Amino acid sequence: MSAGEADHPAARLDDVVHQRVRLGILTVLDEARRADFAYLRDELGLTDGNLSRHLRVLDQAGYVAIEKAFEGNRPRTWVSATRQGKAALAAEVGALRELLDGLDGRRSPS
Amino acid sequence: MSAGEADHPAARLDDVVHQRVRLGILTVLDEARRADFAYLRDELGLTDGNLSRHLRVLDQAGYVAIEKAFEGNRPRTWVSATRQGKAALAAEVGALRELLDGLDGRRSPS
Repeated sequence: MSAGEADHPAARLDDVVHQRVRLGILTVLDEARRADFAYLRDELGLTDGNLSRHLRVLDQAGYVAIEKAFEGNRPRTWVSATRQGKAALAAEVGALRELLDGLDGRRSPS
Repeated sequence: MSAGEADHPAARLDDVVHQRVRLGILTVLDEARRADFAYLRDELGLTDGNLSRHLRVLDQAGYVAIEKAFEGNRPRTWVSATRQGKAALAAEVGALRELLDGLDGRRSPS
Protein backbone atom coordinates (compact mmCIF):
# COMPACT_ATOMS: atom_id res chain seq x y z
CA MET A 1 0.00 0.00 0.00
CA SER A 2 1.48 3.30 -1.04
CA ALA A 3 1.76 6.27 1.29
CA GLY A 4 -1.11 8.71 1.18
CA GLU A 5 -3.75 6.11 0.37
CA ALA A 6 -6.50 5.44 2.84
CA ASP A 7 -5.61 2.24 4.65
CA HIS A 8 -8.96 1.51 6.22
CA PRO A 9 -10.09 -1.95 5.08
CA ALA A 10 -13.38 -0.44 3.82
CA ALA A 11 -11.33 1.51 1.27
CA ARG A 12 -10.22 -1.81 -0.24
CA LEU A 13 -13.72 -3.17 -0.77
CA ASP A 14 -14.70 -3.38 -4.45
CA ASP A 15 -18.31 -2.51 -5.25
CA VAL A 16 -18.48 -5.12 -8.01
CA VAL A 17 -18.05 -7.88 -5.43
CA HIS A 18 -19.16 -6.13 -2.25
CA GLN A 19 -22.69 -5.22 -3.39
CA ARG A 20 -24.90 -7.52 -1.30
CA VAL A 21 -26.62 -9.47 -4.11
CA ARG A 22 -23.34 -10.03 -5.96
CA LEU A 23 -21.55 -11.04 -2.75
CA GLY A 24 -24.39 -13.52 -2.19
CA ILE A 25 -24.07 -14.94 -5.72
CA LEU A 26 -20.29 -15.44 -5.43
CA THR A 27 -20.69 -16.97 -1.98
CA VAL A 28 -23.26 -19.48 -3.20
CA LEU A 29 -21.01 -20.31 -6.17
CA ASP A 30 -18.06 -20.83 -3.85
CA GLU A 31 -20.12 -23.36 -1.94
CA ALA A 32 -21.77 -24.99 -4.93
CA ARG A 33 -19.13 -24.82 -7.74
CA ARG A 34 -21.98 -24.21 -10.19
CA ALA A 35 -25.61 -23.39 -9.63
CA ASP A 36 -28.58 -22.95 -11.88
CA PHE A 37 -30.48 -19.70 -12.21
CA ALA A 38 -33.53 -20.84 -10.25
CA TYR A 39 -31.42 -22.13 -7.37
CA LEU A 40 -29.51 -18.84 -7.06
CA ARG A 41 -32.75 -16.87 -7.28
CA ASP A 42 -34.48 -18.88 -4.54
CA GLU A 43 -31.44 -19.25 -2.29
CA LEU A 44 -30.93 -15.48 -2.27
CA GLY A 45 -34.59 -14.47 -2.31
CA LEU A 46 -34.35 -12.49 -5.57
CA THR A 47 -36.60 -11.80 -8.51
CA ASP A 48 -35.59 -13.05 -11.97
CA GLY A 49 -34.90 -9.47 -13.07
CA ASN A 50 -32.76 -8.62 -10.09
CA LEU A 51 -30.66 -11.77 -10.42
CA SER A 52 -30.23 -11.21 -14.19
CA ARG A 53 -29.07 -7.66 -13.67
CA HIS A 54 -26.42 -8.62 -11.12
CA LEU A 55 -25.25 -11.65 -13.12
CA ARG A 56 -24.68 -9.29 -16.02
CA VAL A 57 -22.41 -7.09 -13.88
CA LEU A 58 -20.44 -10.12 -12.68
CA ASP A 59 -20.23 -11.52 -16.21
CA GLN A 60 -18.94 -8.22 -17.60
CA ALA A 61 -16.27 -8.16 -14.88
CA GLY A 62 -15.22 -11.67 -15.89
CA TYR A 63 -16.20 -13.07 -12.48
CA VAL A 64 -18.79 -15.62 -13.58
CA ALA A 65 -19.31 -17.90 -16.56
CA ILE A 66 -22.87 -18.43 -17.77
CA GLU A 67 -23.85 -21.48 -19.77
CA LYS A 68 -27.25 -22.26 -21.23
CA ALA A 69 -28.17 -25.88 -21.74
CA PHE A 70 -31.17 -28.06 -22.37
CA GLU A 71 -32.06 -31.01 -20.18
CA GLY A 72 -34.63 -32.86 -22.24
CA ASN A 73 -36.55 -29.88 -23.55
CA ARG A 74 -36.18 -27.85 -20.36
CA PRO A 75 -33.76 -24.94 -20.68
CA ARG A 76 -31.38 -24.37 -17.77
CA THR A 77 -28.91 -21.59 -17.12
CA TRP A 78 -25.83 -22.68 -15.25
CA VAL A 79 -23.61 -20.17 -13.48
CA SER A 80 -20.12 -20.77 -12.14
CA ALA A 81 -17.39 -18.55 -10.69
CA THR A 82 -14.32 -18.00 -12.84
CA ARG A 83 -10.80 -18.03 -11.42
CA GLN A 84 -10.92 -14.21 -11.40
CA GLY A 85 -14.25 -14.33 -9.60
CA LYS A 86 -12.80 -16.60 -6.93
CA ALA A 87 -9.82 -14.28 -6.52
CA ALA A 88 -12.12 -11.25 -6.22
CA LEU A 89 -14.18 -13.04 -3.56
CA ALA A 90 -11.00 -13.97 -1.69
CA ALA A 91 -9.87 -10.31 -1.69
CA GLU A 92 -13.28 -9.20 -0.45
CA VAL A 93 -13.23 -11.82 2.30
CA GLY A 94 -9.76 -10.66 3.37
CA ALA A 95 -10.87 -7.03 3.63
CA LEU A 96 -14.08 -7.96 5.46
CA ARG A 97 -12.21 -10.12 7.91
CA GLU A 98 -9.80 -7.30 8.66
CA LEU A 99 -12.70 -4.92 9.12
CA LEU A 100 -14.50 -7.31 11.50
CA ASP A 101 -11.30 -8.02 13.43
CA GLY A 102 -10.86 -4.28 13.93
CA LEU A 103 -14.34 -4.06 15.43
CA ASP A 104 -13.77 -7.05 17.70
CA GLY A 105 -10.56 -5.62 19.04
CA ARG A 106 -12.43 -2.55 20.28
CA ARG A 107 -15.34 -4.35 21.81
CA SER A 108 -15.42 -5.73 25.33
CA PRO A 109 -16.83 -9.25 25.53
CA SER A 110 -19.79 -8.34 27.78
CA MET B 1 -37.01 -16.26 10.18
CA SER B 2 -40.33 -17.20 8.61
CA ALA B 3 -40.74 -20.15 6.26
CA GLY B 4 -40.39 -19.38 2.57
CA GLU B 5 -37.87 -16.60 3.06
CA ALA B 6 -34.39 -16.98 1.68
CA ASP B 7 -32.15 -17.97 4.56
CA HIS B 8 -28.80 -17.23 2.99
CA PRO B 9 -26.98 -14.66 5.15
CA ALA B 10 -26.55 -12.39 2.10
CA ALA B 11 -30.34 -12.04 2.02
CA ARG B 12 -30.18 -10.42 5.45
CA LEU B 13 -27.68 -7.74 4.48
CA ASP B 14 -29.20 -4.25 4.42
CA ASP B 15 -27.97 -1.98 1.60
CA VAL B 16 -28.16 1.09 3.84
CA VAL B 17 -25.41 -0.33 6.06
CA HIS B 18 -23.75 -2.79 3.70
CA GLN B 19 -22.78 -0.31 0.96
CA ARG B 20 -19.00 -0.10 1.26
CA VAL B 21 -18.62 3.63 2.05
CA ARG B 22 -21.41 3.55 4.63
CA LEU B 23 -20.03 0.37 6.19
CA GLY B 24 -16.70 2.17 6.42
CA ILE B 25 -18.26 5.23 8.08
CA LEU B 26 -20.10 3.16 10.70
CA THR B 27 -16.98 1.10 11.34
CA VAL B 28 -14.85 4.19 11.94
CA LEU B 29 -17.55 5.62 14.21
CA ASP B 30 -17.67 2.38 16.17
CA GLU B 31 -13.95 2.72 16.77
CA ALA B 32 -13.92 6.46 17.38
CA ARG B 33 -17.30 7.24 19.02
CA ARG B 34 -17.35 10.48 17.08
CA ALA B 35 -15.27 11.73 14.20
CA ASP B 36 -15.08 14.95 12.28
CA PHE B 37 -15.82 15.21 8.59
CA ALA B 38 -12.21 15.62 7.48
CA TYR B 39 -11.06 12.62 9.52
CA LEU B 40 -13.74 10.36 8.02
CA ARG B 41 -12.96 11.62 4.53
CA ASP B 42 -9.21 10.98 4.84
CA GLU B 43 -9.50 7.71 6.75
CA LEU B 44 -11.78 6.26 4.06
CA GLY B 45 -10.11 7.92 1.06
CA LEU B 46 -13.26 9.78 -0.08
CA THR B 47 -14.05 13.09 -1.71
CA ASP B 48 -16.09 15.66 0.21
CA GLY B 49 -19.04 15.11 -2.11
CA ASN B 50 -19.00 11.35 -1.79
CA LEU B 51 -18.79 11.45 2.00
CA SER B 52 -21.61 14.04 2.18
CA ARG B 53 -23.87 11.94 0.02
CA HIS B 54 -23.41 8.82 2.13
CA LEU B 55 -23.74 10.71 5.41
CA ARG B 56 -27.09 11.99 4.16
CA VAL B 57 -28.31 8.43 3.57
CA LEU B 58 -27.17 7.36 7.04
CA ASP B 59 -28.70 10.47 8.62
CA GLN B 60 -32.03 9.88 6.89
CA ALA B 61 -32.03 6.30 8.18
CA GLY B 62 -31.44 7.62 11.71
CA TYR B 63 -28.05 5.87 11.91
CA VAL B 64 -25.82 8.89 12.49
CA ALA B 65 -26.13 12.23 14.26
CA ILE B 66 -24.43 15.22 12.66
CA GLU B 67 -23.44 18.25 14.69
CA LYS B 68 -21.87 21.43 13.40
CA ALA B 69 -19.73 23.42 15.79
CA PHE B 70 -17.16 26.19 15.79
CA GLU B 71 -13.74 25.79 17.38
CA GLY B 72 -12.49 29.35 17.52
CA ASN B 73 -13.69 30.51 14.12
CA ARG B 74 -13.04 27.17 12.44
CA PRO B 75 -16.22 25.26 11.59
CA ARG B 76 -16.22 21.53 12.29
CA THR B 77 -18.75 18.86 11.49
CA TRP B 78 -18.90 16.08 14.02
CA VAL B 79 -20.49 12.74 13.20
CA SER B 80 -21.46 10.03 15.65
CA ALA B 81 -23.39 6.76 15.38
CA THR B 82 -26.85 6.67 17.00
CA ARG B 83 -28.07 3.70 19.00
CA GLN B 84 -30.00 2.58 15.89
CA GLY B 85 -26.84 2.94 13.82
CA LYS B 86 -24.89 0.75 16.24
CA ALA B 87 -27.68 -1.85 16.16
CA ALA B 88 -27.69 -1.79 12.36
CA LEU B 89 -23.91 -2.27 12.29
CA ALA B 90 -24.21 -5.15 14.77
CA ALA B 91 -26.81 -6.86 12.54
CA GLU B 92 -24.58 -6.38 9.50
CA VAL B 93 -21.58 -7.78 11.36
CA GLY B 94 -23.63 -10.81 12.43
CA ALA B 95 -24.72 -11.55 8.86
CA LEU B 96 -21.19 -11.02 7.50
CA ARG B 97 -19.70 -13.29 10.11
CA GLU B 98 -22.19 -16.02 9.25
CA LEU B 99 -21.40 -15.59 5.57
CA LEU B 100 -17.64 -15.80 6.18
CA ASP B 101 -18.03 -18.80 8.49
CA GLY B 102 -19.98 -20.58 5.75
CA LEU B 103 -17.10 -19.99 3.32
CA ASP B 104 -14.51 -21.17 5.83
CA GLY B 105 -16.40 -24.37 6.49
CA ARG B 106 -16.16 -25.32 2.83
CA ARG B 107 -12.54 -24.50 2.33
CA SER B 108 -9.69 -26.87 3.00
CA PRO B 109 -6.78 -25.29 4.90
CA SER B 110 -4.19 -25.89 2.17
